Parts: sequence; structure tokens; C-alpha cells
Amino acid sequence: MTTRVNHQWRLAARPAGLITDADMTWTEEPVPTPSDGEVLVRNIYLSLDPTNRTWMNAQATYLPPVSLGSVMRGMTIGVVEQSRHPQFPVGTLVQGTLGWQDCALSDGRGLVPLRTQLGVPLTAWFGLFGHIGLTAYFGLLDIGKPQAGETLVVSAAAGAVGSLVGQIGKIMGCRVVGIAGSDDKCRWITEELGFDAAINYRTESVPKRLRTLCPDGIDIYFDNVGGQILEAVLNQINLRARIPVCGMISMYTAATPVPGPSNLGILISKRARMEGFLVLDYVARAGEAIPLLAQWHAEGRLKYRVEVVDGLPQAPHALNRLFDGSNTGKLIVRISAEP
Amino acid sequence: MTTRVNHQWRLAARPAGLITDADMTWTEEPVPTPSDGEVLVRNIYLSLDPTNRTWMNAQATYLPPVSLGSVMRGMTIGVVEQSRHPQFPVGTLVQGTLGWQDCALSDGRGLVPLRTQLGVPLTAWFGLFGHIGLTAYFGLLDIGKPQAGETLVVSAAAGAVGSLVGQIGKIMGCRVVGIAGSDDKCRWITEELGFDAAINYRTESVPKRLRTLCPDGIDIYFDNVGGQILEAVLNQINLRARIPVCGMISMYTAATPVPGPSNLGILISKRARMEGFLVLDYVARAGEAIPLLAQWHAEGRLKYRVEVVDGLPQAPHALNRLFDGSNTGKLIVRISAEP
Repeated sequence: MTTRVNHQWRLAARPAGLITDADMTWTEEPVPTPSDGEVLVRNIYLSLDPTNRTWMNAQATYLPPVSLGSVMRGMTIGVVEQSRHPQFPVGTLVQGTLGWQDCALSDGRGLVPLRTQLGVPLTAWFGLFGHIGLTAYFGLLDIGKPQAGETLVVSAAAGAVGSLVGQIGKIMGCRVVGIAGSDDKCRWITEELGFDAAINYRTESVPKRLRTLCPDGIDIYFDNVGGQILEAVLNQINLRARIPVCGMISMYTAATPVPGPSNLGILISKRARMEGFLVLDYVARAGEAIPLLAQWHAEGRLKYRVEVVDGLPQAPHALNRLFDGSNTGKLIVRISAEP
Repeated sequence: MTTRVNHQWRLAARPAGLITDADMTWTEEPVPTPSDGEVLVRNIYLSLDPTNRTWMNAQATYLPPVSLGSVMRGMTIGVVEQSRHPQFPVGTLVQGTLGWQDCALSDGRGLVPLRTQLGVPLTAWFGLFGHIGLTAYFGLLDIGKPQAGETLVVSAAAGAVGSLVGQIGKIMGCRVVGIAGSDDKCRWITEELGFDAAINYRTESVPKRLRTLCPDGIDIYFDNVGGQILEAVLNQINLRARIPVCGMISMYTAATPVPGPSNLGILISKRARMEGFLVLDYVARAGEAIPLLAQWHAEGRLKYRVEVVDGLPQAPHALNRLFDGSNTGKLIVRISAEP
């Protein structure tokens, strides 16, 4: 059933810090009609990821900033409701960057049909089998190059990516220490996910706990946050440590620039490497990762948690939850019902 | 001729910022006598390098800090004057870490005979054919991986390492921009060494000049300084940029921690890499580099400048010159006459 009105979240102002009501405008438009070569997709799920917040800032990242007045950029899973495109018949389940809105036209570019024959829940295509799983898999294995017996530290360890990174680290034979923002999260990653230890950075001294929990130093730091935690980790790294830089959440909502670590010189004495990466570069290699991720999941060695927030109106507040510490696992907004 | 008295510079206090007279003590001891298996080396030249200053700080780097009261650690070239070691007969010219003193005993560990058959000036073993040349060669080629047509930026570009890095970059076909601290240095690296352009960071806006001089972005940044210049460069890096981290001079003399760059997140969007390295790890591969360095030097494509300061008493003040911008090229103290 096509919605008669297309509700949309548009960027009204560039947020300083967390998103406020004044930063986004809730608008509506008539549902558009596909021209020849186009499809109309009804969005079912919207993925919320820390990187979305960086798109709201004035400075370009790997994508241009969302321009003021535009529909907010976002990755969605949806179903083709009207089609004038031979490759996407009505009923096709697809993934694309279709924005924070009920529905969208697409000419098929960037639209990927879901491999529904795998029989996994639709939301898994945003998690374990989607960009989250690929980020964790390739970031850790390709950039971090873990070896059995090494010590791996992960920040935002109860987040969508971090929780997978730690588990893959365990599968690779590493000692894994996670850093997260609540006792509940710390319990989840140690008791349910099998991390060796956890640090609650809100209540504990990260430098002190790292020294205690990583007596042999740190070989790999999978960085999701940057800032002070990166500085604390750098003080404990081993020779030839690898630091895959996946995100710097601590910077994304900063109204003024946050200074970087004052101890980057340790990279020299430790001959260590910091390397940024984006999952975009690994999409073509998804076929290497997905069978393994599926196998580990089936064996019970790779668990993931999905948190679904109901209703597109909730999207801005929900995105803030990635930065205020209240989210665990993969955060998704349900825009409409699954077919 | 053996000196009757062994003059020594000992570390009296950990300097805050530049070295002051109160930080070092000038002492003398009787010249020691070698036991069986030892040699007495008379030091001829003392190498002064920015890294020496980090050894004076309380925090360990790749070497433990020099302990208070000890003879200051330093690399020297000397001649064996008394020998009870079969591998080092009297008259052998050697290089070693024999400290800021007239002479020293050695049991031969870490003592390297110079390949005097090459016929280059003794001081070249601290420069082009020593740790400086190897640092520039391997740091740029092994970590920076320059490709013809890429843009290379070098900081401390008129320094011993930086001046070689830029010239090797030109030999590799890069566009090379150097950052240095005076107009004289900028003239030297562009007019005599062939850099494409230079920025005087004391009188020009580095961010603005980088935008002008690197219209195609920056592919490699050979970092000798860290701090604000690193931050300015990061804003201009290209996809898959490489940042060999050789030194962070701007941090070494800081009395309180200097914040790092606030824009490290750019490593993510640019999928870029920062990697620290130490020449120590490349000493075994010197044979790959030295013939090429010698050939380029003979062809006039690789020039170097040596600045010799006379007399061990000058060493502390001379070391400060690596940080106050007054030094160009390789800085060496002459302790005694060549044989």
C-alpha cells in the first residue's frame, strides 16, 4: 500500500552537539510517481549510524554535507511498490540510500536487491550481513591483522560494530577488552559475548584499568571514538601495534574542535600504525565475509543485538542515542511494516 | 694521543623546554683503562639529533630515559686508542653510542667499524651514509611508498633528514613541497636542492600556502614535527595518503603536553595511514640503500649539508639549535681531531 503523503525529515540547521528540534523540519509532500526507468520504493527500515551525524556538519567527509533544506541522507531497506525499471519488479526488497522519508524514487543506481533466499530477518541486512558486519570484519581483519594471543581493545564495544569486532577478535584467538559506557553494557559484552574484560569509561579510570587488564600491552586498538580514550590506549600499545580507525564518535557532536591525543609521538617509538577505513571500499569483497559471518552466527559464536525504534518521527532523537550512551547494538528505525 | 682527563656532560635535571645551564653538569674523570675484551675509544664526532632531547625526558621512548647523573647518551664516531679486543685493533675507526664525553670504554657490543674504504668524509657516516640517510630513504620509500606524479610534503625540510627526503622524493618523480623556518632555508631547499616549493611556517599561513601549493592535494606527508603543521596537512590529504611519522619535534621540548591535531578523523574519510618508524629497524637493510644514496650523491642529485660545531663544551647549546630553528642540515659536534 502506497502512503498518500510522503513524510520527510529535512535538515533545517547544522546541529551544535546533539540534534535539537530546531535542527530538523518534519515536512510532507505528495508521493511521487516513477517515470520510465524509475521505481517507487516504500521505506521499511532506516539505519542509524554515527556517521550520519557527520553528514549534518558543514565540513565534507567522504560524502558532501547534506545541504540545508534537503531530506536527510540515510540508508534504508524498502520494497518496490511501483516499477518502471526492468531490474526491480514490484515487490522486490531493496537496500539503498533513500533518505529519512516514507518513500523515494530511484533510477536503480545504488539500489541493491536483498538476498532474501538466505532467510535472515530483514533487519540483519543492516547488521551482521550489512555494512555493520562488513565494517567489523574487514576493519579488524584487513587493517588490524589480529594474531592469536594478541591483545585487542575495542571502544564503543557495546555498539553495533564494536560488539562484533570483539567477538571476531575472540574467534581469532585474541584477548579482548571492551570499553563501554554502562555496567549493563559491560556485563553484556563479557557475560553474553565472551569479551575477556570490560571497562566502564564513565565510572572507571580508563588508563588505570587498561594497565591492569592489558598486562602484556595492546597490540590492536579498534578505535570508534578517538579523543581521550585513544590517548589512554596509545600509552599502552606494543611494538608494531595496529589501530584501525573506524570512527571518532567523541568528535562528531563537538561544537568546537576537540584536541587530538598529545602522545601521537608514541607511534614512532612503537613503530605503530593508525589507519582509517570505510566499509564502502569493502562492499565488493562482501562475498568473502558473509559466509563466515553466517557460519559463526549459526555456531553461536557471533551474536548481535538489534534495537528497533518505531516510527520515522523518532529518527532525530534516536540518532542522538548513538552519542549519549543509551544505545546498545544496531539502531534501526521502523518506518513502515514489513510486507 | 689519549686525553689525560675524560670530560663528560652529565644530565643534572630534566629540562623543561630548551636545555638550560642548570640541566647539564660538566664533569671530569680519569681516562679509564680497558680490561680484557674491552677497547678505549677516543670520540671524534658527536651526532646531535632531535631524538636526543626526548631521551632527557622522564618518559621512556624506544630507549629508557637517561638517568639523572649519568653521562648523556649520544652517538659518536671515534678511534680505538687502546685495545684488548681482537676485533677492534688500535686505530680502527668506529661508530657507537659512546656518549657525550671525550672517550669511553666499550666491550664491542654496538660498536661498528666504519667502511673507510669508501673514502667519504668521516662526518658522512652521521649523514648521508649513516642513520640520517637511512631514515630518509626507508621512511620515505618503505612507509611513504611514493609514486611518480604524487605530491609529497616534508616538514623540517631544511633539516638533516627532511632535506634528503625531499630530494629522494624528486628522484622518485614527486612534486615536493618543503616546510621550513626561515627564508634562507626555503631558498636553499628550492634553489639548491630542487624542491618545487617551500613554505616559511614562521612568516606564512601554512594552511593557506598548502592549499595554493598543493592544488591536487597531498599524497604523502613526511612528518618531522607533529602538532599544528600535521593538523594543517591533514586537511589537504588525498585518498589513501601515507604519513610516515619520523619525528614530532614540536612536542619534544614542551613542558606540558601539546594537544594533537583535532582532525584525525580525516584519516577515516581519506582511508589514510599514519605510521611511525625508527631507523634502528632498517640498519640490517643498509646495504639496499647505501649504494643508491652514493650513486645519487655522485650524480649531484642528492646534496647534504653538515654543520660542525667545535668542542664538546658546546653540545648542550648546539642541541637546542635543532629546536629553535637556527640549524640547517646535519648537526655534529667535533670532540677531537680526526687521526
